[in-house]
Amino acid sequence: MDNTALPLVLLAEQFAKLPGIGMKSAQRLAYHVMTMSDEDAQTFADSILNAHSKVTYCEVCKNFTENELCPICSDEDRDHSTICVVEAPRDITAFERTREYKGVYHVLHGLLSPMDGITPDMIRIKELLARIQSGEIGEVIMATNPTVEGEATAMYISKLLKPLGVKVTRLAFGLPVGGIVEYADTVTLFKALENRNEM
Amino acid sequence: MDNTALPLVLLAEQFAKLPGIGMKSAQRLAYHVMTMSDEDAQTFADSILNAHSKVTYCEVCKNFTENELCPICSDEDRDHSTICVVEAPRDITAFERTREYKGVYHVLHGLLSPMDGITPDMIRIKELLARIQSGEIGEVIMATNPTVEGEATAMYISKLLKPLGVKVTRLAFGLPVGGIVEYADTVTLFKALENRNEM
Repeated sequence: MDNTALPLVLLAEQFAKLPGIGMKSAQRLAYHVMTMSDEDAQTFADSILNAHSKVTYCEVCKNFTENELCPICSDEDRDHSTICVVEAPRDITAFERTREYKGVYHVLHGLLSPMDGITPDMIRIKELLARIQSGEIGEVIMATNPTVEGEATAMYISKLLKPLGVKVTRLAFGLPVGGIVEYADTVTLFKALENRNEM
Repeated sequence: MDNTALPLVLLAEQFAKLPGIGMKSAQRLAYHVMTMSDEDAQTFADSILNAHSKVTYCEVCKNFTENELCPICSDEDRDHSTICVVEAPRDITAFERTREYKGVYHVLHGLLSPMDGITPDMIRIKELLARIQSGEIGEVIMATNPTVEGEATAMYISKLLKPLGVKVTRLAFGLPVGGIVEYADTVTLFKALENRNEM
């Protein structure tokens, strides 16, 4: 892009840093921004900063939220005795799409991965233990991805929780092994939830 | 995304407006923004506004540029008597990648499309005529996409230019018919340039 205007090159580089966007797509997106109205470009830029500055972690489940508690944790109609443990906030969106799960969540914000130096104290495991020790939790569903790291994390947490007398279950392997929770279709995800097994 | 924080939903909606990005990818990108540092998010937002506010049209060829003239039009080593007419600035990037074309460009910023109500006065045709009437143009290469609109636009412009005594050529159909200039590989594009035919 030697002869391309510098601000366009810089914008394309920003797009190329996003997951799943290569350099050609990034250039295409940068050119698209040039066709936006001034107002639309301002709205786009503002929405990035707004999302980044106004959204924090729910005090209970660590999902992203604008308030102290996320809408799920502050919803009295949900079953607060069942906790579904997920890797990332995007996985909650996937479960909510099934419209079948009525419990609450806990977001780990990562998976154990000794190869990458991710140890238990670097993800939200102690916050999960604190929730369970505070009582009234009947079941913990481990809903991490069926990958090496996801399985290891589920096993590790399961071993920590069993001495506390809480029932720990795992999503059924309706999910294709090596797959990603976020991209599972709704029916598969619902089956996986329905056929969950005690660990 | 009923239970997702509103600023995240709004950001995902912004991403979903970009070409080639569906709602699931848009959500993924929005979640990715949350993992950026404050500084990175600021840089991303700034680069959108910078590209939008600092980049304007080259006075001669109508490509995007930060200055009055784009780097190609202000380059004395280029052959200013040969004009390659393209639909959009992104097509220039594709030709420059071949490193074989030494002439200059003219960006139409659109193609004729009576179905969509795009008439000759809505794209940069009269600016092209003005350049040719100002003299010293030996050849005009029509490099619009080999689609219905691209062909029609090339034919229309060719008929306008011939009475002016200028040689008008068309990219060779090395390009797959129905394809897009922007995504053509470098060799195909070079062949198409090399085998261009007089119209």
